[in-house]
Amino acid sequence: MPDSPRLASTRPVSTGPASTGPASTGPASTAPATTDDGPLPALADHFPASTKREIGDLRVPVREVLLTDGTTYQAYDTTGPDALPGGGLPLRRAAWIAERKGDATPTQLWYARRGIVTPEMHFVAAREALEPEFVRSEVARGRAIIPANVCHAELEPMAIGRNFLVKINANIGNSAIRSEMSEEVDKLRWAVRWGADTVMDLSTGRDIRETREAILRHSPVPIGTVPIYECLERVNGKVEDLSLALFLDVIEEQARQGVDYFTVHAGVRLAYVPLTKDRITGIVSRGGSILARWCLHHHAENFLYTGFDAICQVMAKYDVSFSLGDGLRPGCIADANDAAQFAELRTLGELTQRAWAHDVQVMVEGPGHVPLHKIKENVDLQMELCHEAPFYTLGPLVTDIAPGYDHITSAIGAAIIGWHGTAMLCYVTPKEHLGLPDRHDVKDGVIAYKIAAHAADLAKGHPGAQLRDDLLSKARFSFRWQDQFNLALDPTTARDLHDEGLPAPAAKTAHFCSMCGPHFCSMRITQDVREMAAAQDGMAEMSERFKAGGGELYVAAGVAGG
Amino acid sequence: MPDSPRLASTRPVSTGPASTGPASTGPASTAPATTDDGPLPALADHFPASTKREIGDLRVPVREVLLTDGTTYQAYDTTGPDALPGGGLPLRRAAWIAERKGDATPTQLWYARRGIVTPEMHFVAAREALEPEFVRSEVARGRAIIPANVCHAELEPMAIGRNFLVKINANIGNSAIRSEMSEEVDKLRWAVRWGADTVMDLSTGRDIRETREAILRHSPVPIGTVPIYECLERVNGKVEDLSLALFLDVIEEQARQGVDYFTVHAGVRLAYVPLTKDRITGIVSRGGSILARWCLHHHAENFLYTGFDAICQVMAKYDVSFSLGDGLRPGCIADANDAAQFAELRTLGELTQRAWAHDVQVMVEGPGHVPLHKIKENVDLQMELCHEAPFYTLGPLVTDIAPGYDHITSAIGAAIIGWHGTAMLCYVTPKEHLGLPDRHDVKDGVIAYKIAAHAADLAKGHPGAQLRDDLLSKARFSFRWQDQFNLALDPTTARDLHDEGLPAPAAKTAHFCSMCGPHFCSMRITQDVREMAAAQDGMAEMSERFKAGGGELYVAAGVAGG
Repeated sequence: MPDSPRLASTRPVSTGPASTGPASTGPASTAPATTDDGPLPALADHFPASTKREIGDLRVPVREVLLTDGTTYQAYDTTGPDALPGGGLPLRRAAWIAERKGDATPTQLWYARRGIVTPEMHFVAAREALEPEFVRSEVARGRAIIPANVCHAELEPMAIGRNFLVKINANIGNSAIRSEMSEEVDKLRWAVRWGADTVMDLSTGRDIRETREAILRHSPVPIGTVPIYECLERVNGKVEDLSLALFLDVIEEQARQGVDYFTVHAGVRLAYVPLTKDRITGIVSRGGSILARWCLHHHAENFLYTGFDAICQVMAKYDVSFSLGDGLRPGCIADANDAAQFAELRTLGELTQRAWAHDVQVMVEGPGHVPLHKIKENVDLQMELCHEAPFYTLGPLVTDIAPGYDHITSAIGAAIIGWHGTAMLCYVTPKEHLGLPDRHDVKDGVIAYKIAAHAADLAKGHPGAQLRDDLLSKARFSFRWQDQFNLALDPTTARDLHDEGLPAPAAKTAHFCSMCGPHFCSMRITQDVREMAAAQDGMAEMSERFKAGGGELYVAAGVAGG
Repeated sequence: MPDSPRLASTRPVSTGPASTGPASTGPASTAPATTDDGPLPALADHFPASTKREIGDLRVPVREVLLTDGTTYQAYDTTGPDALPGGGLPLRRAAWIAERKGDATPTQLWYARRGIVTPEMHFVAAREALEPEFVRSEVARGRAIIPANVCHAELEPMAIGRNFLVKINANIGNSAIRSEMSEEVDKLRWAVRWGADTVMDLSTGRDIRETREAILRHSPVPIGTVPIYECLERVNGKVEDLSLALFLDVIEEQARQGVDYFTVHAGVRLAYVPLTKDRITGIVSRGGSILARWCLHHHAENFLYTGFDAICQVMAKYDVSFSLGDGLRPGCIADANDAAQFAELRTLGELTQRAWAHDVQVMVEGPGHVPLHKIKENVDLQMELCHEAPFYTLGPLVTDIAPGYDHITSAIGAAIIGWHGTAMLCYVTPKEHLGLPDRHDVKDGVIAYKIAAHAADLAKGHPGAQLRDDLLSKARFSFRWQDQFNLALDPTTARDLHDEGLPAPAAKTAHFCSMCGPHFCSMRITQDVREMAAAQDGMAEMSERFKAGGGELYVAAGVAGG
């Protein structure tokens, strides 16, 4: 038999009312396993010491963590407000948007280039403790975007750019195989609960339009889509029937709904398709493979490329940002950084400038599967070829051999590519390559990517990023267990793992844990050491002596070995 | 309520007989959650298409994966043979060791320096497809070690060095709080099942000697210990009563049992203790904090440092290798790469040469908690100061803010430090900082580190490393689902995640999965594209044309946008 199941290490142990199974036949922790059932728990259930607040005139959201010494830590908050009684979120941007009515090109790029600092830029600046003018200048030069469709008034604006906090995207969406509409809204709320900065709705199944409407009306974060999916549904899956006219219809409608960015695979040019012929995994982007098929069928240039300016005109009206799709990204280690991938990237650079000519904001998508030593080249080349437009990568996965754990293989690549300048990381869940992620997969993916993004922020020296690490480590060192849990990305999981070994409430103030026991706790011993040193009044003095000696005390104070 | 529990994504869904709870009250997958109970499943339950084989005269173990096309892939195998009827493993090295009886210094280093290629070196060479003479030369110059105590005849020799496959270590061991002896042997067998190359027994609780004996007699991999833990048990936790004489007694006894390497914190010198005073987390190594306390109490130099040569003499007799402990490693991001850490590292370099003078093999331990941009400096400095002795690091964790997920935060650092030349990666489990890992935590830690080590092997260009990625990706592209699962690090988890969406047996040959459904599978469309291209006979020709044009077809073939 395989190993016996147990509660996942990443799932809270305690349970509420189970929706199936005889909960009364055993303790709560043995309730039947479920996947997506049950209502979304309250924020306080996941973040017990946290309070949501809105700061200043702009009402910038933060999640305030109350520590046991009475101080607080303010975490960047993506969770959004509660839904209104009738459904949908409050229209936070309604007044800002109304004031701009009549401007022909109401894009953040258009305003930034004209020296105008929009409320969205002020909001972003407050959110990241930056100067509004700096935000404007980054947007103006195309190095950052603020995806903010004028029809998405529920949005809490955020920026994507390498001089901002590294952001993460979570994909949701149904497919023809499974998933319900309400489940997708739940997945959205679930994804932002754990920290997703943007969400892509990749639905391809039934009710695609209604699902998107429900998502947008409940989303405090930018929503991205891949419009070619809906186009394909409209032609009943017949790739050869796709056309620019249909695409323009679809994006106009989606833009009117409020979609904030579109993935457009305009870089998959007819001439590049043959470059994929010796690949192990060919074309792994869904959009990429659809366009490649269209090109070959008609033996014609990609209509998204030939019709790019018409597409820009629609997007400019609503301030929908481009996410220039990497339809030819590598799908395995062997195919990384090949001619097809970099040929497309060069075209994406050309398209970036074409979009900018229309004052449309742009980010550029990247791979995929890339071994560690080939990651940096991707960022360097993208910055050069795409004129510093923000890079937005999927992982990358640094090996192909771990299906079931690709949130980990890809978080490794994501941390590195984020450190080197990638602005947003598209998450990968444990289900990658295997099936459609459910709520728990979404959480595992988001947490892995919050880790990667924060690691990148630390390495880039983002001001303030290390504060949370320092506060948590101080709590750890002084055995303030509750503070350690509450400052964590996932407080209740940390608490539950601790409690597996030492469930008694008193253990929360104990100066040890079940790993080492009381005798062997290095942190407790270190505190003793410090007290001894203080008593001897020697520690400070010896430290000074070491420094005075040019740090060579390890020789000077040496006792001959015997 | 928190989110409802379900089976972990990393645990197989199917269950056998549950050892607790009313299994008959629900379907198998709702059996009560358990932690460590139940017997160890058979290898075939985790690797359904695998057969263990022994290759050649040296009987080198491999795990052979049978693919659906009748070919096989041979995976490096750490699982060891079955236990003998009376308990314990076969004495594989008995004859090799007997032949060397009488040699005063029977260490692999001593033989290597004299130009002798031992059976252990031949074994390692066969295992990694290298030349035996190359293995000898790497051991002779101290750039690799083969931890192989002459009293551990059950061992299947392996090498640790940066020109070999990157290895991983799993820690097991009871503490005063919990854990049973038989559970530790199960954890050992569990750790090697998933791929641990060495195992450290960090027991500090009761029955410490008996637990170690049981582990050694059942271990096909090198076993490491931290002898100072047993010393402290013997003086009832009174740090000040520790002494060199006691330490020599303990290591002699442990060496006679067959321990293959000792962590010795001889680099925690009196003068360095004050350097930790401004740290956020002080001294986080258990051994380091114990020795620091001893030094301060007696205001004397560390007896492991002053008595280092006496320690070497014991270790040389049995060929126990040093793992020079980094007692002053950083315990948080803020403390990384500081004066205390690097002062100790310099001393470890000095001790490396002292050990080598006794023909004792040496590896050197490293951190810990290090942000991404400070990782490489650790490897570069260690190579320089420690004369290329193998580096063996704990993680490092690249952020402090994710307790409960530190197998991920540290796998990121481990992949990078392995790529830069670290020879062995000590795993971290999801329970790090929170409690004692159980069987499932051990598995999660080992898998995360197999990913990190393999990613490093790929990045270093280790010959043959990419074969597995390529085979798996080919299987993925041609919808050979079973081959994709069976080539994975954890086949049954991959299969079970797939089956959550499409459980029917027919889905195992379907040309799509539940993520995208049949319409939108890029791999299926790509195969259609290839067939279309082949039919048009254009793909090859166009590819040639592109190459002939110097790869500039993206301009030459361009259709004007508009």
